[in-house]
Amino acid sequence: MTLGQNQYGKAQNHVVRIVRDGITHHIKDLTVSVALSGDMADVHLRGCNAKVLTTDATKNTVFAFAKEHGVESAERFGMHLARHFVASQEAVTSARVRIEEHAWERIEAPGGKPHSFVRAGRETRTAQITHDGEGWQILSGLKDLVVLNSTDSEFRGYVRDRYTTLPETTDRILATEVNARWRHAGTGGEPGGEAVRWDHSYATVRDHLLHAFAETYSRSLQETLYAMGSRVIDRCPGIDEIRLSLPNKHHFLVDLTPFGLENDNEVYHAADRPYGLIEATVLRDGAEAAIPVDLTNL
Amino acid sequence: MTLGQNQYGKAQNHVVRIVRDGITHHIKDLTVSVALSGDMADVHLRGCNAKVLTTDATKNTVFAFAKEHGVESAERFGMHLARHFVASQEAVTSARVRIEEHAWERIEAPGGKPHSFVRAGRETRTAQITHDGEGWQILSGLKDLVVLNSTDSEFRGYVRDRYTTLPETTDRILATEVNARWRHAGTGGEPGGEAVRWDHSYATVRDHLLHAFAETYSRSLQETLYAMGSRVIDRCPGIDEIRLSLPNKHHFLVDLTPFGLENDNEVYHAADRPYGLIEATVLRDGAEAAIPVDLTNL
Amino acid sequence: MTLGQNQYGKAQNHVVRIVRDGITHHIKDLTVSVALSGDMADVHLRGCNAKVLTTDATKNTVFAFAKEHGVESAERFGMHLARHFVASQEAVTSARVRIEEHAWERIEAPGGKPHSFVRAGRETRTAQITHDGEGWQILSGLKDLVVLNSTDSEFRGYVRDRYTTLPETTDRILATEVNARWRHAGTGGEPGGEAVRWDHSYATVRDHLLHAFAETYSRSLQETLYAMGSRVIDRCPGIDEIRLSLPNKHHFLVDLTPFGLENDNEVYHAADRPYGLIEATVLRDGAEAAIPVDLTNL
Amino acid sequence: MTLGQNQYGKAQNHVVRIVRDGITHHIKDLTVSVALSGDMADVHLRGCNAKVLTTDATKNTVFAFAKEHGVESAERFGMHLARHFVASQEAVTSARVRIEEHAWERIEAPGGKPHSFVRAGRETRTAQITHDGEGWQILSGLKDLVVLNSTDSEFRGYVRDRYTTLPETTDRILATEVNARWRHAGTGGEPGGEAVRWDHSYATVRDHLLHAFAETYSRSLQETLYAMGSRVIDRCPGIDEIRLSLPNKHHFLVDLTPFGLENDNEVYHAADRPYGLIEATVLRDGAEAAIPVDLTNL
Repeated sequence: MTLGQNQYGKAQNHVVRIVRDGITHHIKDLTVSVALSGDMADVHLRGCNAKVLTTDATKNTVFAFAKEHGVESAERFGMHLARHFVASQEAVTSARVRIEEHAWERIEAPGGKPHSFVRAGRETRTAQITHDGEGWQILSGLKDLVVLNSTDSEFRGYVRDRYTTLPETTDRILATEVNARWRHAGTGGEPGGEAVRWDHSYATVRDHLLHAFAETYSRSLQETLYAMGSRVIDRCPGIDEIRLSLPNKHHFLVDLTPFGLENDNEVYHAADRPYGLIEATVLRDGAEAAIPVDLTNL
Repeated sequence: MTLGQNQYGKAQNHVVRIVRDGITHHIKDLTVSVALSGDMADVHLRGCNAKVLTTDATKNTVFAFAKEHGVESAERFGMHLARHFVASQEAVTSARVRIEEHAWERIEAPGGKPHSFVRAGRETRTAQITHDGEGWQILSGLKDLVVLNSTDSEFRGYVRDRYTTLPETTDRILATEVNARWRHAGTGGEPGGEAVRWDHSYATVRDHLLHAFAETYSRSLQETLYAMGSRVIDRCPGIDEIRLSLPNKHHFLVDLTPFGLENDNEVYHAADRPYGLIEATVLRDGAEAAIPVDLTNL
Repeated sequence: MTLGQNQYGKAQNHVVRIVRDGITHHIKDLTVSVALSGDMADVHLRGCNAKVLTTDATKNTVFAFAKEHGVESAERFGMHLARHFVASQEAVTSARVRIEEHAWERIEAPGGKPHSFVRAGRETRTAQITHDGEGWQILSGLKDLVVLNSTDSEFRGYVRDRYTTLPETTDRILATEVNARWRHAGTGGEPGGEAVRWDHSYATVRDHLLHAFAETYSRSLQETLYAMGSRVIDRCPGIDEIRLSLPNKHHFLVDLTPFGLENDNEVYHAADRPYGLIEATVLRDGAEAAIPVDLTNL
Repeated sequence: MTLGQNQYGKAQNHVVRIVRDGITHHIKDLTVSVALSGDMADVHLRGCNAKVLTTDATKNTVFAFAKEHGVESAERFGMHLARHFVASQEAVTSARVRIEEHAWERIEAPGGKPHSFVRAGRETRTAQITHDGEGWQILSGLKDLVVLNSTDSEFRGYVRDRYTTLPETTDRILATEVNARWRHAGTGGEPGGEAVRWDHSYATVRDHLLHAFAETYSRSLQETLYAMGSRVIDRCPGIDEIRLSLPNKHHFLVDLTPFGLENDNEVYHAADRPYGLIEATVLRDGAEAAIPVDLTNL
C-alpha cells in the first residue's frame, strides 16, 4: 500500500484588511485557503507530527502577512504566502494558495465619509498561486458573473438521433454564469510576476469576456465560449491559457396559446435544472494545458 | 378539531419578461410566489377539490399576465395578480403575491447592441402584495445589501452581568446585511397605489438606507438601525412603517502580538456564526404596525 | 415617529455538549438563537447602552448554561435560558430562544467504543421557547423531513378557469418536505412544562406525521396535510395546535412516446421550481391560533 | 490559438425510477450529469453544429434509459449511458457520466403499504463513469457523511514556527465530513464491471470507512485518514485507489473560567470557518493514481 498525493492546510480564512490613508480608508476582503504538500508520510503512516506545520499556524500566517506584507492584490498576497511556506518548512515541497476576493464600492452619501462601503457586484474574483520552490503557476479567474443576450442567438443544424426532440430555433435567449480561470505566462522564475499589475489585468480580462459575449452572434454556446476565450488570448499577451465553464441557463419560451395569447419572444420561464454545461480551454499556440478540467474549486 | 389559517399556491415561478423597443431590449426578471386563502375546508377535510384553483393554474396565470399586463414594476404586477385571483374565484377571499426582483445592467461593449445584460448588484428587491377584495397591503423591500463602515463605530457603557466578558471599544468595524421591508400608506382603497412610481420609490428608499448607514456615527447597531428606519419614515411621506433586520457581521481584530506585530485596526477576521441580530420596526406616528416580526420569507 | 417591536440577541450559537458516563459518551448538538425584547428605546433613539445586555453575553450564557444546567432536551434548555434573561435583566420583558437540534447515532464498529457517532437523518428538530416572565409558549417542530408515496395519490375534480391546463390524474407520486411546528398546551404557568418528556414527545409526533402520510389515500396534498395535522391533535392530548408547510415536490411523468417507449408510472423528472406550497393550521377545539403563518424561521 | 480540452452535456438531470413489484414499490433517485468530448472544433471555431448531439438529447437519453435499461445501480446505469454515447456518435470519443444517488427508506407505518418512503441519511452516494470506447474508469464515492469521536484524539509534537500558537492537546473532539472516491480495478475491458455487485460494494466500503474512523486512536486527522483509506484498500481487493478529503470540523473547548465554571471536555463551540482540510490518496501497490486531486465535483 502506498500513500499518494496528499496535502493539508487551513481553508477559508476570511481576512479583511483596512488601510487608513488619512480619513480615506481602503478595503481588501479575501477568503484564503492554504494547501501544503511534501514529505508527510510520517504523519499519515505513524502518527508522527514532527514535520507538521499546524493548519492553525497556516491560518495565523495568513492574518500576520496581511499586516506584514499588506494586500496589494490577491495574486501578490498569495505569492508571499506560498513562498514563505516552501522556504521556511523543510518538509514542504509545494504550496498552493487559493483566494476568493469580494469587491466593495464606496457609498457616495452627501454627508458620508470615505470609510463607508457597499458590497459590489455578483461575481467573485479568484486567484490560485502554486509554488514548488522554483516555478510558479498563477491562475486568475472569476465566477458567478451572470450574463444574458435577449437575441442574436440561434441553435440549428445539429445531430438528430433517436432521442432528439428539440426544435430548431433562430431566436432565443442566451444566458450563462461565467466561470473562468486564466493562466499567466512568464511567471515561471523568481520572483514571480513582479511586473504584472494584477488588479488592472483582472479588470481587462473581465471586460474582454463581457465584450466578447455581447458582440458575438451566437450559433451555439460553444461558439460564444470560444469567442470569449480567444478574445482574451488574442488581446492579453501575458495570458497563455484560459478555461471557461459555461452553464447554459435555459430560458424557455412559455406556450401561451392555450390562453389565446401570442408569445413573440416576450415571456420566458427561467429554469434551474437540468442545464447544459459547456466547458473548454483556449490555448496560446505553443502553450501547454495546465488548468484542471474541473473549475469549481479553483 | 378545527382547520385554522390555510393558504396554497405555486411558489417560485421564475418569469423573465423581455420588451423589444426596436433594437433596444428591456428586461424584467422576477420570481413570483402566489398564496390563496378562503373557503377551503372541503379540500382539507373531505378531499373535495371543487373549489380548488390548481397551483398549476396560478403558475400559468403568472406567465400569462406577464404578457397581458406587462411588468411595469414588481408591485404593479403583483397587484394585477392578486386582484385577479380574488375577483375571479368565489372561494378565494384573500391573495398574497410575493416577488423577488433580480436586477440587470446593460453591458457597454464597443461593438455591442442594447440587448446584452449583466446581473447587477448583490441585493434582491422584494415586494409583497396582499388583497382581500377591498383593502390592499403593499410591502416593498430588499435583502442581501451588505454594507460596512471601517470606523466611526463604538460600543461602550453596556450592562455587565456575570456572563459579560466583552471589552469596550471606541473604534470598530460595523458591518451588516440589510434586510428591510416597508409598508406603503394610501393603498387601502381601489385601485391600489396607481399613483406610486414604484421603481423610483424603491431607488429612493435604498438611497436613504445607504446614506443613513454611512452618515451615522454609531454607538450601537441599534442606533444605526433606528437612524436608517427613521430616515425613511422622515423623508418618504408615502411610507408608514419600516422593519429592519440587521445581522451584526462581526469583524474581530486579530491579535498579532504573539508574532511581534501591532494591529492598529488593520487586520480583521470576518466571522460567520454566531452573529448578533438586531431587529426593529419604525412607525409613522399614528400608524399601526402590520409588518411581521420575521422578515426572512417576505 | 415611534419605535415599534424590537428585539436583539446572538443568533446561531452552535454548542455541542458531551456527557461522559464512564467510557460511554452522550452528545447533544444544538444551534441556539436568542432574541430579547423590552425597554430598549434608549439604545435605539439615543445610543445609550445602559440597559443593553450585549449579544456577546447572551452567547456566553448559552455556553455556560450547557455546563450549569446540562442539555436534557432542546425545550428544557431553552426554558432555562429564557427564564434567566427575563429574571436577571430588568429591561428585558420577553425572551425568545430558537433551537435547531442535529441528531447523531452511534457508529456500531466491531472494535469501536461508545464515543463514536455519525450524523443521522436529514431532518432537523426545532424548538422555540418564548417567555414573558409569566407565561410560556413552547413550539416544537421539525423541518427537512422528505417523504414520498409512489402511488395512492390522485388529483381530480378541481376548478377549470381560463388558465387551467393541468390534466386530471388518478395515479401520481406525492412527495413533500415536511416543515411542522406544534404548540404544547399547559405550559402557561411556572415552572413551564416540567411534566413533559420532550424527547419522547418529539419522537411520538414525528411517528404520527410519518404514519398519517403513509396511511392516507390522497385526493390532494391538502387532504394529506389535514390528515397529518389532525392525527397529531387527536393522539397527543398535550398539543393544542400544529401548523404544517408542505411543498408539493412535483414529480412529472416523462413523456417517452417520442422514443417508442411506454411510461407506465415508472420514470419521473423530479423538478425543483416552481413548486406547489400547501400550508395550514389544525387546532384543538377551543384553542386559539398562535403559531405564525410563516414557518421558515421558527 | 488552439482549442484545448472541451466537453459538454446536460448536467443535473434528476430522474426518479419506480419499479412496481405487485403492491411493493422500489425507488431509485439519481441526479445524472453527462459530459461528452471528441471532435468538436467545428462548433467552437465555426459555429457549425453538424457533429453536435444536443444536450437536450443527452437529457432525453437519461430518462429513456431509465425505462429501457432500468436502474440496477448508479454505476451500471452510468455504464449504459457512457457506452451508448461513444458507440452511437461518431464525433464523440469519450463520455463521462456523474451520478449522485439519494437514499430512501421505507416508512414502517401500522396501516401503511410498501410504497411509502422517507429520505434517509445525510450522505450522498456518488459514481463517475468514464469510457473512451475501449477502457473504463469507474469511481464510486460518497460525500456529506459526518462523523465524530468525542475522545481518543490527541494532537502533539508538531512543528513550532514563529506563527505557531496552538497549545498541544491530549484529548479533543475529532469530527469530519467524509468526502471519498474510490476507483475500481478490473474495469478496463468490455463489458465493464459486469461482475461487481455495486450496491453491496458501496455498503461494504461505507462500513469500512466508518469502522476505521471509530476504531482508530488518532494522533492527527492525517493518521485517521490513512487508517480509513488503507482499510478499504486492504479489505476490498477490487479497489485499487481511494482519495479522501476530510475537513477538520473544529470543536473548540469553551473557556468557562470567567464564569467560575470548569469545562472538563464537556462544552464545545462547533466552528464553521476556517477549517483544516486534510486530503490524501491511498494506492494499492503497483496501481497508478488516477483520481483527481479535487473531489468536490466528482
